[in-house]
Amino acid sequence: MFDKVLIANRGEIALRVMRACRELGIHTVAVHSTADEEAMHVRLADESVCIGPPPARDSYLNIPAIVAACEITGAEAVHPGYGFLSENARFAEILEEHKIKFIGPSSAHIRTMGDKIEAKRTAKELGIPVVPGSEGGVSEISEARRVAKDIGYPVLIKATAGGGGRGMKVARSEAELENAIQTAQTEAKAAFGNGDVYLEKYLEKPRHIEIQVLGDGQGRAVHLGERDCSLQRRHQKVWEEAHSPALNAAQREQIGGRVAKAMQKLSYEGVGTVEFLYENGEFYFIEMNTRLQVEHPVTEMLTGLDLVQEQIRIAAGASLKYEQDDITFSGHAIECRINAENPTTFAPSPGRVENVHVPGGLGVRIDSALYAGYRIPPYYDSLIGKLIVFGKSRTECLMRLRRVLSEYVIEGVETTIPLFQRLVSEPDIIDGHYDIHWLEKYLAKNP
Amino acid sequence: MFDKVLIANRGEIALRVMRACRELGIHTVAVHSTADEEAMHVRLADESVCIGPPPARDSYLNIPAIVAACEITGAEAVHPGYGFLSENARFAEILEEHKIKFIGPSSAHIRTMGDKIEAKRTAKELGIPVVPGSEGGVSEISEARRVAKDIGYPVLIKATAGGGGRGMKVARSEAELENAIQTAQTEAKAAFGNGDVYLEKYLEKPRHIEIQVLGDGQGRAVHLGERDCSLQRRHQKVWEEAHSPALNAAQREQIGGRVAKAMQKLSYEGVGTVEFLYENGEFYFIEMNTRLQVEHPVTEMLTGLDLVQEQIRIAAGASLKYEQDDITFSGHAIECRINAENPTTFAPSPGRVENVHVPGGLGVRIDSALYAGYRIPPYYDSLIGKLIVFGKSRTECLMRLRRVLSEYVIEGVETTIPLFQRLVSEPDIIDGHYDIHWLEKYLAKNP
Repeated sequence: MFDKVLIANRGEIALRVMRACRELGIHTVAVHSTADEEAMHVRLADESVCIGPPPARDSYLNIPAIVAACEITGAEAVHPGYGFLSENARFAEILEEHKIKFIGPSSAHIRTMGDKIEAKRTAKELGIPVVPGSEGGVSEISEARRVAKDIGYPVLIKATAGGGGRGMKVARSEAELENAIQTAQTEAKAAFGNGDVYLEKYLEKPRHIEIQVLGDGQGRAVHLGERDCSLQRRHQKVWEEAHSPALNAAQREQIGGRVAKAMQKLSYEGVGTVEFLYENGEFYFIEMNTRLQVEHPVTEMLTGLDLVQEQIRIAAGASLKYEQDDITFSGHAIECRINAENPTTFAPSPGRVENVHVPGGLGVRIDSALYAGYRIPPYYDSLIGKLIVFGKSRTECLMRLRRVLSEYVIEGVETTIPLFQRLVSEPDIIDGHYDIHWLEKYLAKNP
Repeated sequence: MFDKVLIANRGEIALRVMRACRELGIHTVAVHSTADEEAMHVRLADESVCIGPPPARDSYLNIPAIVAACEITGAEAVHPGYGFLSENARFAEILEEHKIKFIGPSSAHIRTMGDKIEAKRTAKELGIPVVPGSEGGVSEISEARRVAKDIGYPVLIKATAGGGGRGMKVARSEAELENAIQTAQTEAKAAFGNGDVYLEKYLEKPRHIEIQVLGDGQGRAVHLGERDCSLQRRHQKVWEEAHSPALNAAQREQIGGRVAKAMQKLSYEGVGTVEFLYENGEFYFIEMNTRLQVEHPVTEMLTGLDLVQEQIRIAAGASLKYEQDDITFSGHAIECRINAENPTTFAPSPGRVENVHVPGGLGVRIDSALYAGYRIPPYYDSLIGKLIVFGKSRTECLMRLRRVLSEYVIEGVETTIPLFQRLVSEPDIIDGHYDIHWLEKYLAKNP
């Protein structure tokens, strides 16, 4: 096991990793920007090194400064957390060159999954279901008709060179197809100078469901079930839960099993998340995150596993000591991301935290680096805490969440707590009837 | 289910009960003394009623004031918490007379178990093991020899009229018996005017192990395993854990099964705890507490049951929906009682709490009514919080506890946190080698 680990991150995730290290008897090194001198992760670390000023590119993204901090302190491994350098293959390589262990998968796996087209190709090869569509560009309308018939309407026409929604059209029937393709081609040509388009199945009201995996880099891998992260605003997850209200155990086993098998084939090392859109009983691969996710606690509550400790053990060379059958799930967990933002406009609300009172009692977990008197700097992500609530059933979990939210006090800055206080009483949320568009629609209707 | 429950208590347990009510959708009424106007349980209740000034006899023990508070607010039931009126059979009866449901067992059961001699007799009748000894007084030395040989040395000679340790002698062999009896008789006669003595098996280094039970008052009852509460100072529990490091599953099943069977015979209603001394594989009944215990969270962590919700459901007429086989245990939990006391002298330390920072993360539960700015009144018990830590194994639990204690900050008053920071690294504690005398000896040697 490592004697000393450097945590190349800040905020709640730096604290989360530090706790795991401490529970394993590992010394910790915090790095921080000049704006984070008073941050909790710095206060609680065994050692800390200032690596530069904000913004992040001059400190938390400054690879030479972080490598130097490892060398100064003698840290044998680096935990990258999420965000920042956690999916930077070059960072992993540079650490390798310096004989410092990167706590995460190989740089090759990071690179593959970081490239959207390569990731989709790899997923398909590994037997993970992807969105069906034309293999490449479609120029002839007869070919488009054949492909569309094959994958079924509605279909999405996308510009090969595209991005940002331009050159994207939906055709809901064969009657609409020709016109949609022509419009898309015209738009794509105008926008990207290239009129090539391709076809994909269009999902009307998908859910975002992701599978947590854990591999030891030696060919063993298991899945740890799914998380439903459909409640999003501007593609940012807001509320995550497990199990998904939309899945049954057989579906979970089936998709989880396929993903675990894929990870075994890859000899994937550490934790990772394979993200899907889900509609009408089918899963469609979006991407794979080759790191710890913000919402990992939801899975920890159901499985009893400490995912960060597992990451560290595996990085230190341990092999997986359990098989898929040893992984059991119990209860239900919901995570609410508490952001320092106005709960209506979502404008960031940095500043001094005057008072914090966190709820307690049975089934409550708080992952937060906040304290009374802390000044939230304006330079970073607005996530200031995660509230995770566990119950034997989804109903119990929701009742508990309602109680817990009524006790949570953060004064001095605005937070998204009032948003969750509203959401927890919404019939659609209580019934589990929501898709990836639900929250945006709800916020438009209920400002 | 009840619509409104009055909580006849204060501090963390009032909050604990309030949380359970809220999660069940029940409105809550807090009662409070004039010294507790600013208390958390008052702030968070739906309604509150002032029932008098400190000390407790003028408010929290004032039965007419509490009954009046029920009538004013329309509360249908009263949860007594622990301490105060929780084991007052007369209070339960008065509530019955006012058609207010007492959330707890029948007044008859409270009364029986509240009388030491009656409780022991009842336990024996119900097949619960008690300390072996002479049935009544022993006057002839020949009889004493026969009884002592029967129960085995060492034996304890106790004054029938005794108390407070006077007239108590230990005989470790037959050679010591005659002399010990004569001394005890002489002391007893001098102290109580009555020289009668009786014999009991003497336990050298027992552990305090208790069995949690839950019955529905309709003949169904289960046990929820044991808690080891051997770490005590002046007969006050300081640290409780489950499972006991001294027991194996077969022993747990055996003693638990006997206790559950006894509760079935009694048609016991609600939660209760049967306390034992334990030595060399044998259990010896001490007493039964007919109420929720301070240390109930330890059991909740292992079983996933919310004991307060179970109490309320049963009081509202529900029957137990599970059998003994449905009760499963997982992991290990330790509770530390955080008192507002000097951690060395144990002198109470009431006063203003300037700052509170509670630890978070996986496996951490805090039951506390403390907040920054709260003034701890000098009139009540010094318990200000309970830290409960869960781990998959005892080792993981201890490692986590060590981490968690290093993060816990309470400023403005002295607390017993530093005591636990010492204990968690003591080899005997780590090994689980401790009995009911261990902590007193440790504190004498390590002031």
